[in-house]
Amino acid sequence: MATRREQTSHESSERILKAAAELFAEKGYRQTTFADVAERSGISRGSIPWHFGSKEGLLLAVLERSVSLIGAGLTEPDEPEEPAAGFDRLVAGAQALLEMPTTKLFVTLLVEALEPGSPIHGRYVEIHDTLRGHCRRWLEQLPLPPGLSADALAVTISGAGIGIHQQWLLAPDRIDPEAAMAALRRMVAAVVLPVGE
Amino acid sequence: MATRREQTSHESSERILKAAAELFAEKGYRQTTFADVAERSGISRGSIPWHFGSKEGLLLAVLERSVSLIGAGLTEPDEPEEPAAGFDRLVAGAQALLEMPTTKLFVTLLVEALEPGSPIHGRYVEIHDTLRGHCRRWLEQLPLPPGLSADALAVTISGAGIGIHQQWLLAPDRIDPEAAMAALRRMVAAVVLPVGE
Repeated sequence: MATRREQTSHESSERILKAAAELFAEKGYRQTTFADVAERSGISRGSIPWHFGSKEGLLLAVLERSVSLIGAGLTEPDEPEEPAAGFDRLVAGAQALLEMPTTKLFVTLLVEALEPGSPIHGRYVEIHDTLRGHCRRWLEQLPLPPGLSADALAVTISGAGIGIHQQWLLAPDRIDPEAAMAALRRMVAAVVLPVGE
Repeated sequence: MATRREQTSHESSERILKAAAELFAEKGYRQTTFADVAERSGISRGSIPWHFGSKEGLLLAVLERSVSLIGAGLTEPDEPEEPAAGFDRLVAGAQALLEMPTTKLFVTLLVEALEPGSPIHGRYVEIHDTLRGHCRRWLEQLPLPPGLSADALAVTISGAGIGIHQQWLLAPDRIDPEAAMAALRRMVAAVVLPVGE
């Protein structure tokens, strides 16, 4: 059982992570200071390095927290499932993902991740691999038409999810992400699901 | 005819814009200083504000230059065209777009554009509208299946292009953007093109 002191330390870490995630999404990683995080979280400025070492350590911890929140939303079944049910599961997972406040963070941090030598580059590549992996494993169970690989389709389907999300973040009043996801479902079904699904 | 002096001024502006576009793509807008731009372009630090006013003015000018480069690649025909030909034209335009060195800039500046009150937010919304518009005008000439709107499909297709590009920027050794665009073509054709195209 956690001691009172450990519990308090865990609570402080969580408050710092939540505040940092919000600030990174709002103003970007580089523009956020420890002083900003202290003000938003109510945790003293001096104790943040005690929890996370450097600002880079805080960035990595924020990213891990977001990844685990996303992973929790993308469960895979233990039992074989119907192709259409598998796709509905993926679309529902993507929809839940798009609605998470942390997804804006992924766009804000993408710029950092694109930089050569960035500490989060490798982690970002893994996150994209995870998204594509969910698609690919579903596709590999289906009889794909000749000339279409599960790999290429997984890039396209994940890409559509990423791109729909970004258009919506930029202009929420012009973009209907649910209609776009429904169109994606139709496009995918037309090439990979048996007629009539 | 331009005077010698006007010509030199135009050449200086072009050199500044090219250097700034490269630097914004490499290190982001905020991290780039007038001194960096002066060093890269070989134009004196003091004359940059003379050409573009503020750093914000330079950002807008860089964006406009990239938009006009993109617009030049996405021409629309004067005459009616076959549905499949229209789609090949769009795919070729998107492919050319993905290969432009300026496209990384659009990702780097997306973070700036997402910020409330950003000077480039409105321009970004217009750029996305332009991309979607090209898709939508093509789709509107086709007999779409019931329940699928040209609007929703345009968001999904543009989104796939955006998302494929970003996955490739992040991990060029893992992503084959041509295979993914070919998969997109198949998915779109399966829902909107007459059987056999």
